[in-house]
Amino acid sequence: MATTELGRLLGLAGDLRVDFVDSPALRDNPLGDPSVRPLAIYTPPGFDPGGSKRYPVLYVLHGYTGDVAALVAARPWETNVVQWADRLISSGAMPPVLLAIVDGFTRLGGSQYLDSIHNGAYATYTVRDVIDHVDSAYPTIAHEGGRGVLGKSSGGFGSLYLSMTYPGVFAAFASHSGDTNFRASFSPSFALAQRTLEAHGGDVAAFVRAFEGKHKRSQAEYATIEMLGYAAAYSPRAAEAFALDLPFDAYTGAVCEDVFARWLAFDPVEICLSKRAELARLRLRYVDCGRRDEYGLDLGARRFVTRVRELGLEVRHEEFDDDHRNVGYRYAVSLPALAAVLEVG
Amino acid sequence: MATTELGRLLGLAGDLRVDFVDSPALRDNPLGDPSVRPLAIYTPPGFDPGGSKRYPVLYVLHGYTGDVAALVAARPWETNVVQWADRLISSGAMPPVLLAIVDGFTRLGGSQYLDSIHNGAYATYTVRDVIDHVDSAYPTIAHEGGRGVLGKSSGGFGSLYLSMTYPGVFAAFASHSGDTNFRASFSPSFALAQRTLEAHGGDVAAFVRAFEGKHKRSQAEYATIEMLGYAAAYSPRAAEAFALDLPFDAYTGAVCEDVFARWLAFDPVEICLSKRAELARLRLRYVDCGRRDEYGLDLGARRFVTRVRELGLEVRHEEFDDDHRNVGYRYAVSLPALAAVLEVG
Amino acid sequence: MATTELGRLLGLAGDLRVDFVDSPALRDNPLGDPSVRPLAIYTPPGFDPGGSKRYPVLYVLHGYTGDVAALVAARPWETNVVQWADRLISSGAMPPVLLAIVDGFTRLGGSQYLDSIHNGAYATYTVRDVIDHVDSAYPTIAHEGGRGVLGKSSGGFGSLYLSMTYPGVFAAFASHSGDTNFRASFSPSFALAQRTLEAHGGDVAAFVRAFEGKHKRSQAEYATIEMLGYAAAYSPRAAEAFALDLPFDAYTGAVCEDVFARWLAFDPVEICLSKRAELARLRLRYVDCGRRDEYGLDLGARRFVTRVRELGLEVRHEEFDDDHRNVGYRYAVSLPALAAVLEVG
Amino acid sequence: MATTELGRLLGLAGDLRVDFVDSPALRDNPLGDPSVRPLAIYTPPGFDPGGSKRYPVLYVLHGYTGDVAALVAARPWETNVVQWADRLISSGAMPPVLLAIVDGFTRLGGSQYLDSIHNGAYATYTVRDVIDHVDSAYPTIAHEGGRGVLGKSSGGFGSLYLSMTYPGVFAAFASHSGDTNFRASFSPSFALAQRTLEAHGGDVAAFVRAFEGKHKRSQAEYATIEMLGYAAAYSPRAAEAFALDLPFDAYTGAVCEDVFARWLAFDPVEICLSKRAELARLRLRYVDCGRRDEYGLDLGARRFVTRVRELGLEVRHEEFDDDHRNVGYRYAVSLPALAAVLEVG
Repeated sequence: MATTELGRLLGLAGDLRVDFVDSPALRDNPLGDPSVRPLAIYTPPGFDPGGSKRYPVLYVLHGYTGDVAALVAARPWETNVVQWADRLISSGAMPPVLLAIVDGFTRLGGSQYLDSIHNGAYATYTVRDVIDHVDSAYPTIAHEGGRGVLGKSSGGFGSLYLSMTYPGVFAAFASHSGDTNFRASFSPSFALAQRTLEAHGGDVAAFVRAFEGKHKRSQAEYATIEMLGYAAAYSPRAAEAFALDLPFDAYTGAVCEDVFARWLAFDPVEICLSKRAELARLRLRYVDCGRRDEYGLDLGARRFVTRVRELGLEVRHEEFDDDHRNVGYRYAVSLPALAAVLEVG
Repeated sequence: MATTELGRLLGLAGDLRVDFVDSPALRDNPLGDPSVRPLAIYTPPGFDPGGSKRYPVLYVLHGYTGDVAALVAARPWETNVVQWADRLISSGAMPPVLLAIVDGFTRLGGSQYLDSIHNGAYATYTVRDVIDHVDSAYPTIAHEGGRGVLGKSSGGFGSLYLSMTYPGVFAAFASHSGDTNFRASFSPSFALAQRTLEAHGGDVAAFVRAFEGKHKRSQAEYATIEMLGYAAAYSPRAAEAFALDLPFDAYTGAVCEDVFARWLAFDPVEICLSKRAELARLRLRYVDCGRRDEYGLDLGARRFVTRVRELGLEVRHEEFDDDHRNVGYRYAVSLPALAAVLEVG
Repeated sequence: MATTELGRLLGLAGDLRVDFVDSPALRDNPLGDPSVRPLAIYTPPGFDPGGSKRYPVLYVLHGYTGDVAALVAARPWETNVVQWADRLISSGAMPPVLLAIVDGFTRLGGSQYLDSIHNGAYATYTVRDVIDHVDSAYPTIAHEGGRGVLGKSSGGFGSLYLSMTYPGVFAAFASHSGDTNFRASFSPSFALAQRTLEAHGGDVAAFVRAFEGKHKRSQAEYATIEMLGYAAAYSPRAAEAFALDLPFDAYTGAVCEDVFARWLAFDPVEICLSKRAELARLRLRYVDCGRRDEYGLDLGARRFVTRVRELGLEVRHEEFDDDHRNVGYRYAVSLPALAAVLEVG
Repeated sequence: MATTELGRLLGLAGDLRVDFVDSPALRDNPLGDPSVRPLAIYTPPGFDPGGSKRYPVLYVLHGYTGDVAALVAARPWETNVVQWADRLISSGAMPPVLLAIVDGFTRLGGSQYLDSIHNGAYATYTVRDVIDHVDSAYPTIAHEGGRGVLGKSSGGFGSLYLSMTYPGVFAAFASHSGDTNFRASFSPSFALAQRTLEAHGGDVAAFVRAFEGKHKRSQAEYATIEMLGYAAAYSPRAAEAFALDLPFDAYTGAVCEDVFARWLAFDPVEICLSKRAELARLRLRYVDCGRRDEYGLDLGARRFVTRVRELGLEVRHEEFDDDHRNVGYRYAVSLPALAAVLEVG
């Protein structure tokens, strides 16, 4: 039975605690986000911190506009990733693992889990500072073979990106409805962002302050902060808050190809082409997406999978009849698949 | 600074813990919901459990389909009721109080905080078991003058209902977008519920099991479980799960006036007429609602306020330009208003 | 082949002309609507105005916010009532008939085809002036046995109302998604109308002028003009433009039962109870509605059908999986059914 | 006063007739659409077909999924292009002109008014066959200086395309929310079309037949037929029904750049760059779009206008606060502007 309040609120057989990681990688970041970050740790039933058994760890990355608190929150009739793991482990459908739920939120809604001169070094924070903490504080299998990474939407992107960019850290990834295919999926948002920013005189800082001050925000405003968040990750101009290069013209919304090329340098559909070795060493490559995804990420997944298969590598690829929202039930597939390929202690 | 994990996740200057109350009133309830319930307690900055200072307590009631976990969950860019209280107290905008966040969830989505042979005695649980726990475990002003009650939607209903039905417990209430005016506000949902139940052969239990087993649920399905939840509270047939009298004809959806009369016996717009004395002893009666409320509860609020004023009593009544969802920013008005009329220790 | 421009635009094998009827019943109506009204007449292939063959006539009533021009308009990939009749007659699926498409529009969006001191005598206009014109200008079977009436939404209401109120005029009716069950179906619109009118200082005339002057109108504004249109039909106060008794309180939106009783006096669900003789003489009583009707008129249809059957009379009752909009394909069922029971020349 | 039935239905001071043009350009087109096409002709008050006065003509092009019948249809509380012209001429706000409303519909929803081996030669039909008919049947100013062209959406595109491609035909154009900026505006529809076609086994003909057979069609189905209609215009494969090259991969939805290049060859934003001379001879270049256009055509308009201005030419460019639908009130601006620059008889 759970002993922490969070664990009891979630009705866990295992337990859930929240550590706080003081990350050197995030210290003094220009955007002013905290460098001490919550890290939620799920431990399975029977977990003994002082015992001899060592556990594999699945690192969970939340989506854009999410954070650790939102990902572990319980909602009636819903099952979050921690509850899924707890249920699957309790029933024997998967072996016991730890979950480490990473916080990648920024003032602009998300870091995409990568190093940016504007946001701070969120990739380094994730693959170095967070993992160091987990491996030192918990009885883990403290090497590649004992680690997987997964997430949904921007968390799916992070799983793909970190797996391809930091070989040797994770042995497997699962990307649910992950960001890919940037040109097709972001195009409609550029129009919304152009209009919204124009209404704020083209002043990014003014828009962000207005956004933060509102009780409610429109869909166009959310799309705008999202494009700013991505620019902060993919095309920062300088190590200064709101110093961003936007990938569209301020008046016509036309794609600025030179800036957008910097975005594409992070598109999993593009970068996989040069990452055969990094992908090949993984024990599992898992990708899924709903066939009604509003951003067309199902087609992005198909493009990614097709390209990786053309590299001669297998990908587990699943599609399902749903849209982009509330697809957490897919964890019931990915969690056991990841756990099955990791080393056991 | 917060010491609990929840308190730190929420970034509180005060703190937030979760107790579990073992409620005699809920024991062996027919619906099979737990009788041990989470109770979240917010304590303000400087709170000393062993000191001599005694605190007023605001009891917070969540809405239909909500629970304690959902109400205290943090969401980026949003401020929940605990965070509002913490911010307002920290800035001096209101005196320090405790918050006690009550769990009134049931398998059918909510208890409406009243005693039902079908659900269990949620009113007794709230005004007796929960308050007993709070007054025994915390340094409270343990009588009417030190207690207020508030909530939104079904939580607003609960605040109105308990204040009028259990005089001497609370000294003030605040109802945000509270359920009122049942005939007008529930009418559209009866049609949705009729169709949904017919699709399940009119079998309530079959529908509930199907509902619980789904990954996603339609608006009509949510409206249906809601009508069942209200029937469980207002017109139970027997002390047996799913033994409900529905207020509409199974084939035509026409209102069954004899059953619906049992619902109306709980409608604040109706019961206020016979509760002058109970209302008069309150130090504050606060009602607000958005003028675009999808259920027309703004008009219900006007009816309630008009009738109470016709009894010769004052009501603080505010309207604002918004709909039924995400109106938590109204706590910034109600929390200081309630705190201002309660006794201080 | 069609010879008129309208007939050719619609691609008819028969033909479509527009007469203009100068109606004594509508002369000098207080709302200022024209008393000369368009009346579209469909004639089937082989129609010979000077021949000896006499034809039955189906009178078609448009819905609220509709008029003759809108009902006969062609839309790509859609089939309007005239095109359905033409297709069904051409294929032999039904015998040749005339269609007479009646104009019941008013400045407030529709007359409900009844006599009102505020709007004018639209029932008299329909059952006397329009029919006189048709019977004098065309070779019709000029008595009850040669006439049917049908329509959708408010046109369905008109079909029900006129059939029950003016016995001896029509031998059969078909009501598609017809207005019924007023208390349930209008309740949500009262809230919208209350808010909209309040925003115009409660001044009906001011609202109507603003409505007419707008390029686009909101859903709430459409719901408001609709409630005014119904008040003009069901609860006029005087023979003066905008002199209406509204069935809800100007401040609380609460139903004014005395006024609403005047509305209910027109509700088919209510009036059928005293119209057994009028209903009994009909050769066909046809009612259908989609099971996802946004106004719950499927349930109204069930109530009406149930009550008429309790009078010992048969009703043809069909349900289908659709909502309230664009259900014109149901004419493929109703037109042959009506034609089959009428006398042939 | 109007003498035709259409003219009377629309309440015109002038008149409206429908001619049928037998177009050599459309004869035996592969898609099987008729070569005899309706052409609606508006004549202003005082028009005398046998008099000496000669009139300028405004050619009106409907949008995708529209046709002549739909464009001239009356709707309560709305004003169509014919009614706008009639009202403006009657009030003296613009001089008398003729309107010629051209039919460009195809089985796939629209021809884009251009010559296609798949659809037929709709540009030739418009600028040769239609104009020949008008100039021979009506007292027109039968040369460039007496002709303007306008339309909305695909009709706006047609106005831009024909003006730039057939110099000497029209002296002025007005494009309302015209199709431009193809890469940005079509991108989201490619995903919808990919999914829809896959659900029909990738068989275009099978999808079209299913589409035509449905009572109602989803947004995705409309987007799909639209992409097919554009492929039929921009990238036909052969002179055979449904022999189309689609600009996206059948499995990944990725843009096929070689096919899409054929689309871009028609994008006004692209072709204007080589059409300086053709644009320069025009007396008026008018472009407008709502700033909430769902397809981002406001940004396309900005791109077009910017480029034409960079050619040293003036464009009248207006923006307004609205989306893509029901912007017919913009005719009140464009019709007088066009009429003002044309020759008078």
